[in-house]
Amino acid sequence: MVHLGANQYGKAEVRLAHVARGAGPDGEDLFRDWNVSTSLSGDLADSHLTGSNEKVLPTDSQKNRAYALAKELGDVEPEVFAAALGSFFVSSQEPITRARVSVEEYEWSPIGATGYSFTRSGGLVRTTVVHVDSAAGTSVVSGLKDLTVLNTTASEFWGYPKDAYTTLPETKDRILATSVNAAWRFRPDAVDAGVDWAAAFSQARSTVLLAFAGTYSYSLQQTLYAIGSAVITALPEVCEVRLALPNRHHYLVDLAPFGLSNKREVYQAGDRPYGLIEGTILADDAPEDGLAWS
Amino acid sequence: MVHLGANQYGKAEVRLAHVARGAGPDGEDLFRDWNVSTSLSGDLADSHLTGSNEKVLPTDSQKNRAYALAKELGDVEPEVFAAALGSFFVSSQEPITRARVSVEEYEWSPIGATGYSFTRSGGLVRTTVVHVDSAAGTSVVSGLKDLTVLNTTASEFWGYPKDAYTTLPETKDRILATSVNAAWRFRPDAVDAGVDWAAAFSQARSTVLLAFAGTYSYSLQQTLYAIGSAVITALPEVCEVRLALPNRHHYLVDLAPFGLSNKREVYQAGDRPYGLIEGTILADDAPEDGLAWS
Amino acid sequence: MVHLGANQYGKAEVRLAHVARGAGPDGEDLFRDWNVSTSLSGDLADSHLTGSNEKVLPTDSQKNRAYALAKELGDVEPEVFAAALGSFFVSSQEPITRARVSVEEYEWSPIGATGYSFTRSGGLVRTTVVHVDSAAGTSVVSGLKDLTVLNTTASEFWGYPKDAYTTLPETKDRILATSVNAAWRFRPDAVDAGVDWAAAFSQARSTVLLAFAGTYSYSLQQTLYAIGSAVITALPEVCEVRLALPNRHHYLVDLAPFGLSNKREVYQAGDRPYGLIEGTILADDAPEDGLAWS
Amino acid sequence: MVHLGANQYGKAEVRLAHVARGAGPDGEDLFRDWNVSTSLSGDLADSHLTGSNEKVLPTDSQKNRAYALAKELGDVEPEVFAAALGSFFVSSQEPITRARVSVEEYEWSPIGATGYSFTRSGGLVRTTVVHVDSAAGTSVVSGLKDLTVLNTTASEFWGYPKDAYTTLPETKDRILATSVNAAWRFRPDAVDAGVDWAAAFSQARSTVLLAFAGTYSYSLQQTLYAIGSAVITALPEVCEVRLALPNRHHYLVDLAPFGLSNKREVYQAGDRPYGLIEGTILADDAPEDGLAWS
Repeated sequence: MVHLGANQYGKAEVRLAHVARGAGPDGEDLFRDWNVSTSLSGDLADSHLTGSNEKVLPTDSQKNRAYALAKELGDVEPEVFAAALGSFFVSSQEPITRARVSVEEYEWSPIGATGYSFTRSGGLVRTTVVHVDSAAGTSVVSGLKDLTVLNTTASEFWGYPKDAYTTLPETKDRILATSVNAAWRFRPDAVDAGVDWAAAFSQARSTVLLAFAGTYSYSLQQTLYAIGSAVITALPEVCEVRLALPNRHHYLVDLAPFGLSNKREVYQAGDRPYGLIEGTILADDAPEDGLAWS
Repeated sequence: MVHLGANQYGKAEVRLAHVARGAGPDGEDLFRDWNVSTSLSGDLADSHLTGSNEKVLPTDSQKNRAYALAKELGDVEPEVFAAALGSFFVSSQEPITRARVSVEEYEWSPIGATGYSFTRSGGLVRTTVVHVDSAAGTSVVSGLKDLTVLNTTASEFWGYPKDAYTTLPETKDRILATSVNAAWRFRPDAVDAGVDWAAAFSQARSTVLLAFAGTYSYSLQQTLYAIGSAVITALPEVCEVRLALPNRHHYLVDLAPFGLSNKREVYQAGDRPYGLIEGTILADDAPEDGLAWS
Repeated sequence: MVHLGANQYGKAEVRLAHVARGAGPDGEDLFRDWNVSTSLSGDLADSHLTGSNEKVLPTDSQKNRAYALAKELGDVEPEVFAAALGSFFVSSQEPITRARVSVEEYEWSPIGATGYSFTRSGGLVRTTVVHVDSAAGTSVVSGLKDLTVLNTTASEFWGYPKDAYTTLPETKDRILATSVNAAWRFRPDAVDAGVDWAAAFSQARSTVLLAFAGTYSYSLQQTLYAIGSAVITALPEVCEVRLALPNRHHYLVDLAPFGLSNKREVYQAGDRPYGLIEGTILADDAPEDGLAWS
Repeated sequence: MVHLGANQYGKAEVRLAHVARGAGPDGEDLFRDWNVSTSLSGDLADSHLTGSNEKVLPTDSQKNRAYALAKELGDVEPEVFAAALGSFFVSSQEPITRARVSVEEYEWSPIGATGYSFTRSGGLVRTTVVHVDSAAGTSVVSGLKDLTVLNTTASEFWGYPKDAYTTLPETKDRILATSVNAAWRFRPDAVDAGVDWAAAFSQARSTVLLAFAGTYSYSLQQTLYAIGSAVITALPEVCEVRLALPNRHHYLVDLAPFGLSNKREVYQAGDRPYGLIEGTILADDAPEDGLAWS
């Protein structure tokens, strides 16, 4: 009467730090700080139905492999690590036909000139999700999250439909603030040919920042499209960008009851509710996405 | 060179409380505590491309409609509310062809006999996600999250493959703990015919609890399947269940260095990493899911 | 030119679970779920000033002792555990003259009749902070936090001063909601004589709930005092109660723009800002608190 | 039989953003992002005991005053704002004899050259707590929290006592990581004479960073003392520093079972438990702290 559908399992949030001692250009240490999650799928019905685990590589082994691989690969970009880790599981475990590996990377900046001192920089998190599929090959979606940005002006919102529940006044000037959650899909042929992942991330991030700042905005939707298309334009190896932008409302405080004007000076930063704008921007020649977003 | 793909927008996390004064069986107040999010999609390209907002009903209006609807409907189940709210947007805004409305409901229990005093009960959150599509109709996926459960025994894990990275010892007895995140899809014809949503939720929750407790487990995968199939069996109006079960590891502490035995008594509750087991269980005659899970 | 002042160190957030197998009245398992933190102080200047660690019992050893003690004591109340753990450090480490041990206990309820199945019940956390001082003896402060309660009525707020910045309308009816954070100090002679800690907690919790529900409130301050004095009255072994009550505002939504009345039905639950009411209630014969609250 | 002890009340977490339009040196906007909490105390027994609110300035009015004051003061340092806000309550509300105002400031950096675009920089939060007391005057404690730092080496830990529960191996090399929570008390006469708050914060922050990086550490206690004494030395207007340093353990992963060495390369970053080192460093001539830390 019932049957098993799609399923996957793995180890989530393996916290992995790597030090490449003296490997920097001036002999300084290089430091990586990652949160790694693996998820495997394939011929796993027995485990669900009969309690036989003969095809279930323990999640603990997945974690161990992640640590061992970090040793073997040394200081590499998270995309390289994720692809290698995923390939390992698919190639070494016969029942496993697909691996999903995600890595969050937290950034650190040097303190002074010791060569071994660092401080966490920014709330921004760099992300990558790599799928390795025995049939479909490898897909790479990288991105960032929690990049909080704000324009104190250059944002309008008007001309919208007014229904019986519309009380929002139109505005020709407002604060526009959001926390950018962005993910960009690399073209499969670029992945095959090899991508400079560090450069791609760096360029994508600065493109996001400058597109946000540089867009005179009539809606957050418009800003979203500007960011997404700028990233695709700037990175030829990218064919698709997905964005989720919470609209972090800043409300102009009414100071009139206190005999004060408020000439776009004092705002209440709101928590909830918030607008949430989500959209996809694609290169016209983007290939099919396959499993990349699953 | 680039174009807009799938997109949606709305108001997230509208915190809405409703009091039905004296509406209980003994004249007591009924209290609902909700977190409502709306997301609309349709013919919204202009907003992204030209900055014209003439088809963009403000998210603020969506919020207002939610509050007004709560007044109109009174004390109703979240599924009823979500379907009505979604229908409103799709039917009243010509460019909008689809609405996704999600509601989280937080439970409260009476304190004493005042009839107006309540306390938040449990960490469990009741959820529903309703899609209203002008072409495909209405889908309802309800569920729960953060239902934390634990068996102190009746859990084994052995017989798994040992690769070069496997150090985990096999066990015939372990603590099994998880936080259940479950969602169940209702059959479209049941939705059309009308469901007793409160009874369905109550039965699903107790079924989850009893299936977890009642399953002698050889893996969390097996427990997952047992829970999912029990829910489908118990609720004929449900055709599919999706579960995400973090394996909240409890590690037996090695007390031997201190001259003490540890006969399955003292455990360290781990944070990260954790296993994550995800799976779908379907009725054999489950209809297509369409948009239900998007 | 500078010198070291007060200092302490220890292990924070040791997650400790204990199973007393078959120890319940019907042969069921008893389960405890704790978060234990230790903090030691005494003659620790060397460690700060010279880098000598000869008086610094590692925090790792403190953690180990907590796990070993849980084995030795079995299923005990958190106050008993905390006092024994603190005494151990003060009596066994010569430089240590004071220990502060805090325990958070998370509650679990049985599922069904397996005797080994449990579910986390409620968001409430039971707390205790025990100080063991080689000179001043032992103090015990227990409490609870995150006990969320709400009255849909029986709350007024009016008669307050109106200054130039007061716009709040007076009200004869509002929702009153808070998350109770309460801590009660036990009389030293009661601690010495022995307290039924489980009964005390149970009674304090129900007293808090019933005092909140049973107080017709003109301010949250008044409710705070009612709760505190009820606890002292109900528990003769308690001499002081400290409460911190966030005022979780529920705002009546203005539905008039939509042609709807809102007869105390639909509210917006606010996040920030919130009122915060803090106060202490003492028995008239309360002894000095000494270190109890530090 | 019972009586009211110490008490205070106020508005917590007023989220306040301020834009000083074109006020920067190059005509750019200046942006401040604050979380303000007020807490008042004085002759407030009636409110607790009789339900009379005639001395209880609403927390809503306190919030309003904060917003209005931001308008009046314009772009000022948080210490200036907090002192002015506290003084207002104490001087204008006769029953109020003391005000505690705390401000968290979140930092933003410019994006590009628009003059109006910003991005949140870092996880660091700047803090200040100002007490204004009608008798004792004004005290200022400023600080920072969530400044995460790490040395990949230059940290040892050995020579500690070994009791029956000590299993930790000594080490001559480990990663040392912490999230600095620091607060520094300004000398009352410096407060009276006027402090360059921005410069003081900037110098304190860089001193913390450089002291952490520059200390070859035999314990986190030693690092704590080095940081605190460096801040007092660098800032003559500061007389006391309090630090709470969680020891964010990084565990060297044992790769031997996989036939791999681990030459201080691959670490597991731990969550819980963690060490917690707390200490106070005082200038030898530090005046009494009075209410400053309450």
